[in-house]
Amino acid sequence: MTELQRMGEKAKEAARFLACAGARKDKALRAMADALVAHTEQILEANREDLEAARANGMRETMLDRLALTEPRIASMAEGVRQVAAQADPIGEVVSGGVRPNGMRIRRVRVPLGVVGMIYESRPNVTADAAALCLKAGNAVILRGGKEAIRSNCAILDCMDGAARAAGLPEGSLQLVRDTSRASSVEMMGLTGYLDVLIPRGGAGLIRSVVENSRVPVIETGVGNCHLYLDETADGDMAEAIAVNGKTQRPSVCNALEKLLVHEKAAPELLPRVARALTARGVELRADPRALAILQEAGIPAVPACDEDWDTEYLDLIMGVRVVRGLDEAINHISAHTSGHSECIVTNDYRSANRFTSEIDAAAVYVNCSTRFTDGGEFGLGAEIGISTQKLHARGPMGVNELTSTKFIIEGDGQIR
Amino acid sequence: MTELQRMGEKAKEAARFLACAGARKDKALRAMADALVAHTEQILEANREDLEAARANGMRETMLDRLALTEPRIASMAEGVRQVAAQADPIGEVVSGGVRPNGMRIRRVRVPLGVVGMIYESRPNVTADAAALCLKAGNAVILRGGKEAIRSNCAILDCMDGAARAAGLPEGSLQLVRDTSRASSVEMMGLTGYLDVLIPRGGAGLIRSVVENSRVPVIETGVGNCHLYLDETADGDMAEAIAVNGKTQRPSVCNALEKLLVHEKAAPELLPRVARALTARGVELRADPRALAILQEAGIPAVPACDEDWDTEYLDLIMGVRVVRGLDEAINHISAHTSGHSECIVTNDYRSANRFTSEIDAAAVYVNCSTRFTDGGEFGLGAEIGISTQKLHARGPMGVNELTSTKFIIEGDGQIR
Repeated sequence: MTELQRMGEKAKEAARFLACAGARKDKALRAMADALVAHTEQILEANREDLEAARANGMRETMLDRLALTEPRIASMAEGVRQVAAQADPIGEVVSGGVRPNGMRIRRVRVPLGVVGMIYESRPNVTADAAALCLKAGNAVILRGGKEAIRSNCAILDCMDGAARAAGLPEGSLQLVRDTSRASSVEMMGLTGYLDVLIPRGGAGLIRSVVENSRVPVIETGVGNCHLYLDETADGDMAEAIAVNGKTQRPSVCNALEKLLVHEKAAPELLPRVARALTARGVELRADPRALAILQEAGIPAVPACDEDWDTEYLDLIMGVRVVRGLDEAINHISAHTSGHSECIVTNDYRSANRFTSEIDAAAVYVNCSTRFTDGGEFGLGAEIGISTQKLHARGPMGVNELTSTKFIIEGDGQIR
Repeated sequence: MTELQRMGEKAKEAARFLACAGARKDKALRAMADALVAHTEQILEANREDLEAARANGMRETMLDRLALTEPRIASMAEGVRQVAAQADPIGEVVSGGVRPNGMRIRRVRVPLGVVGMIYESRPNVTADAAALCLKAGNAVILRGGKEAIRSNCAILDCMDGAARAAGLPEGSLQLVRDTSRASSVEMMGLTGYLDVLIPRGGAGLIRSVVENSRVPVIETGVGNCHLYLDETADGDMAEAIAVNGKTQRPSVCNALEKLLVHEKAAPELLPRVARALTARGVELRADPRALAILQEAGIPAVPACDEDWDTEYLDLIMGVRVVRGLDEAINHISAHTSGHSECIVTNDYRSANRFTSEIDAAAVYVNCSTRFTDGGEFGLGAEIGISTQKLHARGPMGVNELTSTKFIIEGDGQIR
């Protein structure tokens, strides 16, 4: 038996306890939040070692910032865990039910998934967030973070696990894979029989590798080639504000805009205005021939787009720009290139708004507001474990409910068929 | 581009139409039902050829019966399609919704999965059932049945597809893979980018192969190592009726009983009684040492069980029998060996009933009624496309709702973050 299989055994055993743990989960979560604060110094020390090693390995400044913890960041992690504790317990909820004609009482009840595996990259706060959400939903969790954050992750996991056990949760409720080699990640993808689901969270490369190689069922998250379509009747102020917010407020995240489509009748006036606002904030525009002509005439810097641009998630201050003949071409273009994350139309036309929301096939479809809202907190679902871009099981921001399953309970008095 | 990829392209194109097809789906379904009846003679002729070929290949009589169509069976297939047409349309249902503090209106709306793939074995009625359920949920479907039924499946599909197109549904809405070689099945498992989900339906071997090899997300169906536990307070009449019904009413199906566990205090009286009723109906008993001793003393034929027996789905008139010390051992044994399908306790003890339903982790957990009820129709869900034994996306009988996903629609007035 390998180390990971042993962890799997422990997790399965713990999951049986957690499925019926009720309010003990919340008591443990509050203790875990307290422990994070109490161990701030140890966590920061471990994080300093991670940062030193990362700097020595030449990590970029933006990535160092994702890796870095501070006292306020740890306090905010703890606050996140407390908020999860304060949410209603999803387990045991009767989703539906009734009495069958033969007198059997049937109800469908919410239960945990079992054992959740997560493979993620550099941000150490994912360790605390994921552990809290999985436990709240009654699942045991096996976490496998990136090697850059291994010391921080160990410090966070150890103090949370200690607190969870002191509060009465069994060993194996939350575990961290200490081996951060590629082999451990590959082994996790084959851990059927132990893991009920595997959630990758990180860059497009990580997610593609897990989706293609895992034999454990996967929930695909987070790649966002998000489009903004400015319809003929788009309000100029709204179009500019939503384009700028979606592209520049946080360009490195999956709900940031990557593409701008403009109706040909609106383009002569609207495109230069929006493009100026974007380039003023440092955005590089990659334009199709029609958009390029308008931009050049207006003296706005832009380069020609190539075919790959339309499928690329830049996660950077770059935006593909295209002039379309109208709503049909916009819908066709988006349907051909969407990653199924978040898509937006700015319009004042009632029929255009309705066609866009009904015909575009994505987790979140927006009319006249920013794609940056695709987030569990913003949608009112509480904390999120990721944003699903697949259609099975969960779609869009995944909160505690998306970490559960259901079972049917049928009670009778001797009924047979 | 391969033939299957071409089918995938057509299906994706059709799926965009079907997602917004509304009541046209029901009109098409009714026309498809009429077409099945109108083409009864052609379908029976094709089926006769399948049966002849199968007989020539030495197919067993029970399998020939599964393959055989008759006029009443075709009428009943058509009636099934009409019932699906009469169900409420799941698409467009607002699952949840509200207004966010910033004024954005958000709603979660039920949408189709997209393109559903099905790989199944000999029964040709699955072709009509699956096509109807998938279309009702707004999905395009690519069906790949077994080679024994290929002529019947072609006849069924061709007449349904003709009717669907005459009723205005696009080409590609329902398609049948005519190549029944193993290669076509393997290619389907890799058809990511075209198929949103793959549902295998058939024997344990088929299902295992699809679960292990598919890169398309799979919904695992149908393996049932179902247990009946007779608690200390089990009513004798009820225990006997449920054991006999679960084991013998239709032994070849996944919700049939495979194992009998008996509380040691109830065993001396209850086990011989239930065992006599089972053996009188031709059931072979495979017993652990304690059960064997009781059965032998009562003069009831039984053989010793071996380790594998506890994990085997016999699908035959065979049953594993075991005496347990009580509820804890029963729950532990079931937890170790369950396939997560259907599990039953017969008891009159309130606490035992509650512990069993809360601690047993299976799609359907029964108190005092037969596991044979695990079925979409019996549960009031309408027709079913299979019974999911996994925890992601769908669990238990899958009806039309389980062939859908959701999306978030967010409407605003210029909101940004």
